[in-house]
Amino acid sequence: MRSPKVLITTVPFGNKNPLPLNLLKDAKFDFVINPLNKKLTEDELFNLASDFDVIIAGTEKITARIMDNAPHLRLISRVGIGLDGVDLNAAKERGIQVSYTPDAPTSAVAELTIGMMLTLLRSVQISNLKMHEGVWHRYFGKRIQNCTIGIIGVGRIGSAVLAFLESFNTHKILVNDLNQNLNFEKNANIEWASKKTIYQNADIISLHVPLTPITQNLIKKEELQMMKNDAVLINTSRGGIINELDLYNTMKSGHLSAAAIDVFNDEPYKGKLIEIDRCFTAHMGSMSFDCRERMELEATEEAIRFLQNKPLKGIVPEFEYELQLNE
Amino acid sequence: MRSPKVLITTVPFGNKNPLPLNLLKDAKFDFVINPLNKKLTEDELFNLASDFDVIIAGTEKITARIMDNAPHLRLISRVGIGLDGVDLNAAKERGIQVSYTPDAPTSAVAELTIGMMLTLLRSVQISNLKMHEGVWHRYFGKRIQNCTIGIIGVGRIGSAVLAFLESFNTHKILVNDLNQNLNFEKNANIEWASKKTIYQNADIISLHVPLTPITQNLIKKEELQMMKNDAVLINTSRGGIINELDLYNTMKSGHLSAAAIDVFNDEPYKGKLIEIDRCFTAHMGSMSFDCRERMELEATEEAIRFLQNKPLKGIVPEFEYELQLNE
Repeated sequence: MRSPKVLITTVPFGNKNPLPLNLLKDAKFDFVINPLNKKLTEDELFNLASDFDVIIAGTEKITARIMDNAPHLRLISRVGIGLDGVDLNAAKERGIQVSYTPDAPTSAVAELTIGMMLTLLRSVQISNLKMHEGVWHRYFGKRIQNCTIGIIGVGRIGSAVLAFLESFNTHKILVNDLNQNLNFEKNANIEWASKKTIYQNADIISLHVPLTPITQNLIKKEELQMMKNDAVLINTSRGGIINELDLYNTMKSGHLSAAAIDVFNDEPYKGKLIEIDRCFTAHMGSMSFDCRERMELEATEEAIRFLQNKPLKGIVPEFEYELQLNE
Repeated sequence: MRSPKVLITTVPFGNKNPLPLNLLKDAKFDFVINPLNKKLTEDELFNLASDFDVIIAGTEKITARIMDNAPHLRLISRVGIGLDGVDLNAAKERGIQVSYTPDAPTSAVAELTIGMMLTLLRSVQISNLKMHEGVWHRYFGKRIQNCTIGIIGVGRIGSAVLAFLESFNTHKILVNDLNQNLNFEKNANIEWASKKTIYQNADIISLHVPLTPITQNLIKKEELQMMKNDAVLINTSRGGIINELDLYNTMKSGHLSAAAIDVFNDEPYKGKLIEIDRCFTAHMGSMSFDCRERMELEATEEAIRFLQNKPLKGIVPEFEYELQLNE
């Protein structure tokens, strides 16, 4: 009988807490950690994945072509929540199951989002750059309490952002979601608004939507131009939702006071946005020790459950497949 | 009769909202805005102040020598809260009253403090520096929820920080204050602790004390070495409380994961701390539009009340004089 093999593509993996690796060893499953030690291209994964039964996956693209080249593949266990990299319906057609860890990154991403809001409102990132160049400049900024905040996407992470905002007594919060029927608990200073209303009125716009055909290029030149001249734009969700070239041109022209772009179309990001002295990070949303540990552990435990023929806990729900079918 | 003259030393002043200047004009009081457009040295203020009745003051030093050279001086109206620049008892001996605006900066400083906590815990300032150099590096960090937070000073600003922290459900908060009898509302995860306990146990240490003889050099090499190797240190209160050279040597050696130092002994700061790739700002704590406007307005209204022989509202209380007498 064939001994099942696990490929771990997302790196770093198990280097802060070796528990997931130890679990695999204890269960006597062979595993390989991505030897290229970077986010894999389609061709790289195509070559790497051919002999594996399970992929413990990051955000890399896992296409039908890769699946066809991996005849033993039976489970893709995503470390994290985004499924835009996985061709879900191609997986279904080939009898490959897909699991994810949707809750693990929530708090880490939401905390980072609040940090970016408070920091960028006060231009600390610019003051800090200048300070290190020996230039002393005190910037004026806005206080979050006086801001209208627009949250697009009020699922797990957007809702956590709303909860963290509570103690700041913000002036007004406008929310929108892809799901118009969302059971959304409103309170005095939170109200539902169209995306256009949010673009036009918010001092801070924060995106918490998945990357789907509907959200791809959601924010282009037209939407950026609708925003206030001194708006702060935050994307800790997925690259591809904001058109990067349009954002570059918009900010180059002086529009928008700051942008925290944690996620990019292609990572590691090498594009022109690095010329702009605003705050960009490097896909750090989920990079807290505890969240990363939890994601790695949950994805690994799911892989082990699968290989031991136990019931799965993180199976991707049907609506995610339907979202991709609209493509 | 002599027409009273007002010197505004703190700059920029009235450039976001001209209301304070208009109030002075409407009341027909002559005023001069600091022509050097920078924080004044003692000699500069000595030369500038000699013919004025009222100083609407920033954080510059106002010494007995300056007062002796300004025979008409009758009121120092501080834009802000810190009184370490003003020799209060020398002023009292010369019949010069001193007012301040203690409430105005509270929210702006507290919001910035939370922003620094969330940002530095995740090393976003380093990721951002590297990103602009074209280097992609994802840092792991801590979530604030899992941190022990030490707050030294729970007056206006420290209390506001505690209030903002509420929605983050932090693991534990240790507080200390110069005033041991402070009427402090404890709750389940907030407890009183010695400074030493805070230095040794906190993941984040944030200072919210005035600069007095007691707090001068409060944090030196010894205290820095007590802190956790990966602690985050935040000072948005006053320069002089942390020994800057000791902080430089400590961080140069790799101790402490980050420091947000908003305030320095001498500003504009030109010292060696700029070599350290941690996050420093440029005295931005109170630099929100609304707080700065409120401070400028309150200090100006106080000056006008004084010159119109109306009761004052922001007179510095007696205990501030006593604190300085302990020097």
